[in-house]
Amino acid sequence: MTTSPLAVVLLSGGLDSTTVAAIARDRGYRLLALTVDYNQRHRIELAHAARVAADMGAERHVTLPLDLRAFGGSALTDDIDVPKDGVQPGIPVTYVPARNTVFLSLALAWAEAAGATDLFIGVNALDYSGYPDCRPDFIRAFEDMAAQATKAGVEGSRFTVHTPLIDMSKAEIVQEAARLGVDLGTTWSCYDPTPDNRHCGECDSCRLRHKGFEEAGLPDPTVYA
Amino acid sequence: MTTSPLAVVLLSGGLDSTTVAAIARDRGYRLLALTVDYNQRHRIELAHAARVAADMGAERHVTLPLDLRAFGGSALTDDIDVPKDGVQPGIPVTYVPARNTVFLSLALAWAEAAGATDLFIGVNALDYSGYPDCRPDFIRAFEDMAAQATKAGVEGSRFTVHTPLIDMSKAEIVQEAARLGVDLGTTWSCYDPTPDNRHCGECDSCRLRHKGFEEAGLPDPTVYA
Repeated sequence: MTTSPLAVVLLSGGLDSTTVAAIARDRGYRLLALTVDYNQRHRIELAHAARVAADMGAERHVTLPLDLRAFGGSALTDDIDVPKDGVQPGIPVTYVPARNTVFLSLALAWAEAAGATDLFIGVNALDYSGYPDCRPDFIRAFEDMAAQATKAGVEGSRFTVHTPLIDMSKAEIVQEAARLGVDLGTTWSCYDPTPDNRHCGECDSCRLRHKGFEEAGLPDPTVYA
Repeated sequence: MTTSPLAVVLLSGGLDSTTVAAIARDRGYRLLALTVDYNQRHRIELAHAARVAADMGAERHVTLPLDLRAFGGSALTDDIDVPKDGVQPGIPVTYVPARNTVFLSLALAWAEAAGATDLFIGVNALDYSGYPDCRPDFIRAFEDMAAQATKAGVEGSRFTVHTPLIDMSKAEIVQEAARLGVDLGTTWSCYDPTPDNRHCGECDSCRLRHKGFEEAGLPDPTVYA
């Protein structure tokens, strides 16, 4: 009997990363779940990440504090208003500079330390907000860099960054989660929660989430303001 | 009158990164100095980094806590003995998985937030301990990745990772520091300090440091055990 391989899964506790964790588990990986506490304003997602990691049977869940507010530059970490006027063209103010680069680098560090070569991240190029670090070109460039960056890479292992959602619409993601039996009611998407911890219903992330359930023809379990 | 450009300099407080900061300043950059507190066993280097940043007139110095011990895998963060038997072939146990990838990713995040496109890092391919993330191939792969990872990159800016020491011997680095008037007595190299905060004199880093001064024909100001 062989042991299942380990994979590091970046888990924010949102709809996308939770579905990715379920996909990785479905493909036979044992999960190392990594959540970054980057002093995001929507800190409630950290509690949701811990709940999801437990539900998914992750071997280990690390919530790593990393204060990206030290650098500034985003509505998700600074005192800039989160836009509420619908998804606009271009790169929005909720973009956090180089966030996925930093997150994947941390996942790579854990993977190498744990002897894993598979990373999973819930980036999505279609139904997303136009972030540069969610595009396939970025993912390929990161893999090429990882091959040069690590002892494992130099010794011949190839790190793979799995992006199972990259070409899916939000509706398809919701359907995939349903197929895998994920309770999406435990996930968190909102960038700007109400004081009593409900989804605001108006930020880009809430709009995409609700539209996903609608287009999937599935009931949205989210409690909006 | 134009303003000098900003550069993010990774500053550990060691001989190499201190010399790199002096080179960046000499080339006309204003310095954003980034030190990562990764729970290294040789924490005394953090105090040296702060001293060096002040001496160099850095515009800002950020010491960012990031607990890489959460992942394990290195003698610099775990309870593994630091080798004292001289520099050996191969990648040593003091290698921290993907450390320079993580550090450069954080520097990239700060650079993008600050509107800078120049990063400086004191990696060295010659007179070093065989770490994969100190090689030119890694640096080029990181630049290629950065071009895809960022809003600035996608919009046409090119991030440059400057590695002015990459082909220098330790003796040449010591000479360059002397030429630029750097007081190397304020820097810290040792991986395994004595309880009264002296350099041990026996780890790879101490051996390379002392050999550098010897071969440069300059007095070594370091207090060894």
